[in-house]
Amino acid sequence: MNQATKPVRQAQKYPYFEEETSADVVNARMGPDISPRLREIMTAVVKHLHNAVKEIEPSHDEWLAAIKFLTDTGHMCTEWRQEFILLSDVLGVSMLVDSINHRRPSGATENTILGPFYVPDAPRYEHGANVCLDGKGEPMLVQGRVLDTSGKPIDGALLDVWQTNEDGFYDVQQKGVQPDFNLRGVFTSGPGGSYWFRSVKPRFYPIPDDGPVGKMLEAIGRHPNRAAHIHFIVTAPGYDPVITHIFEPSCRYLSEDAVFGVKETLIAEFEHVDDAAAIEKAGFDKPFWRVNWDFTLAPKSPGTKSDAPII
Amino acid sequence: MNQATKPVRQAQKYPYFEEETSADVVNARMGPDISPRLREIMTAVVKHLHNAVKEIEPSHDEWLAAIKFLTDTGHMCTEWRQEFILLSDVLGVSMLVDSINHRRPSGATENTILGPFYVPDAPRYEHGANVCLDGKGEPMLVQGRVLDTSGKPIDGALLDVWQTNEDGFYDVQQKGVQPDFNLRGVFTSGPGGSYWFRSVKPRFYPIPDDGPVGKMLEAIGRHPNRAAHIHFIVTAPGYDPVITHIFEPSCRYLSEDAVFGVKETLIAEFEHVDDAAAIEKAGFDKPFWRVNWDFTLAPKSPGTKSDAPII
Repeated sequence: MNQATKPVRQAQKYPYFEEETSADVVNARMGPDISPRLREIMTAVVKHLHNAVKEIEPSHDEWLAAIKFLTDTGHMCTEWRQEFILLSDVLGVSMLVDSINHRRPSGATENTILGPFYVPDAPRYEHGANVCLDGKGEPMLVQGRVLDTSGKPIDGALLDVWQTNEDGFYDVQQKGVQPDFNLRGVFTSGPGGSYWFRSVKPRFYPIPDDGPVGKMLEAIGRHPNRAAHIHFIVTAPGYDPVITHIFEPSCRYLSEDAVFGVKETLIAEFEHVDDAAAIEKAGFDKPFWRVNWDFTLAPKSPGTKSDAPII
Repeated sequence: MNQATKPVRQAQKYPYFEEETSADVVNARMGPDISPRLREIMTAVVKHLHNAVKEIEPSHDEWLAAIKFLTDTGHMCTEWRQEFILLSDVLGVSMLVDSINHRRPSGATENTILGPFYVPDAPRYEHGANVCLDGKGEPMLVQGRVLDTSGKPIDGALLDVWQTNEDGFYDVQQKGVQPDFNLRGVFTSGPGGSYWFRSVKPRFYPIPDDGPVGKMLEAIGRHPNRAAHIHFIVTAPGYDPVITHIFEPSCRYLSEDAVFGVKETLIAEFEHVDDAAAIEKAGFDKPFWRVNWDFTLAPKSPGTKSDAPII
């Protein structure tokens, strides 16, 4: 009679963990019947995540600090505040995703991020209307054309515009202080693709920095300010919509926008006009800023990537 | 009199965003006076994050799905549930960090992760005590020695032991069902480094899978189960503490532990003993499992990495 019997060891289906091959060990576990796109995404996530850990060689406390940072970032998210999008923004990931999805023919107006302050259904205005509803700030006139990449004017393009006031706040951040829909409006390009409207010079402003992302920015010696800009969404049937900004060139944060929204091609010229006749013609009662800006739309391109939900 | 003057464009301090150089653009922004270790960490995080995004080329909706996943994971975290640690565990990151921080001389017992079920201040027992307080399960005897890497026995080492019951639950998961400190105990190695105690055979169990991490595992075709194991922390003055498991070799999840805790060197032999004399000698009243396991401790190594808080 045997004193002891040894049960058979379970057959090895997957490799055991080893530091050298760690990402492959993890990725080998994915099931055979999953979404091929999800497999592609997770394979890359695990590979680059393990590469980062291997380069950083975090101590246990550093790893725990990362866990705590992610947890705090999650806890900061509410219906009104998206701290993970902020994190994506300040690490340049939002701009990178935007760039990847908007590689346009040379000459077309470049895209930049939408940002959190867009409000749909802004008032429709005639050319020349002033979107500044409270008379505050330095007057500004914006004018130009909507063209296609061959230089042909596009009539009937919609230009949806929004921006901060002279203090760096959007209307939605100062409900009751600014009039509703202050510094927002939708214009339609006319014959020759032309458009023009009046407003006030925008100012830089900080992204929300009272959460974990703000704390991180401080720790890495960065400020939270966005370079002064005017937002546009320009659309026309048969053309790729463009979500973009134009930037004010003398803003002190021009080359250090906290979310990396500035592209060389999106920096406008702001001319200061103090000629009495020009002031009167523009319908202002004091010197103003004049901005000439043409938008160039590319013909509609077929969608390149599936937007099906992943999980 | 000039009609218009153009203010000077702000001097460019930092490069503008471009897809090709995106990680460098982001990293160039860090201030000059920050912690060198934090600079090193953030530089690597941004570089590998951008590499991942460039390989994946996420659509806008895929990016948003990632934001939502991280947000949901954050919202799942409470005082009692750490979903980001679970995420780190199932992606093999916890094991990788553990491995990096516990590169031991060849022959020393390998580390594995602590897990969430350790409870300090378990009862101290004499050799041979049975840590199973409710008499449930298949009896198991664990015995062996604590040695150093030269083979010298270590007397007076502390062995802190914890494990699941036969249903795959820890006492802390079944308060009121299992007795407090069921299947937990602290033993001290005796002359010759020897130890022995009695318990019951552990069972596999699922990590908590009712949150976003569980949903992710399902989507990538993975189960949430940990291979059956016994936890140990073994400490002795002058030696590196070891946090480890020993694994039951016939467990169906042996090579597919959900958190990658299994290492080849940590798989024990479980002998089934049905000899009447051996049963009586072990103090059992039925056949039992016998596990022989020696621990090998490495001399204390100087700390290699700073554990100072990062942010």
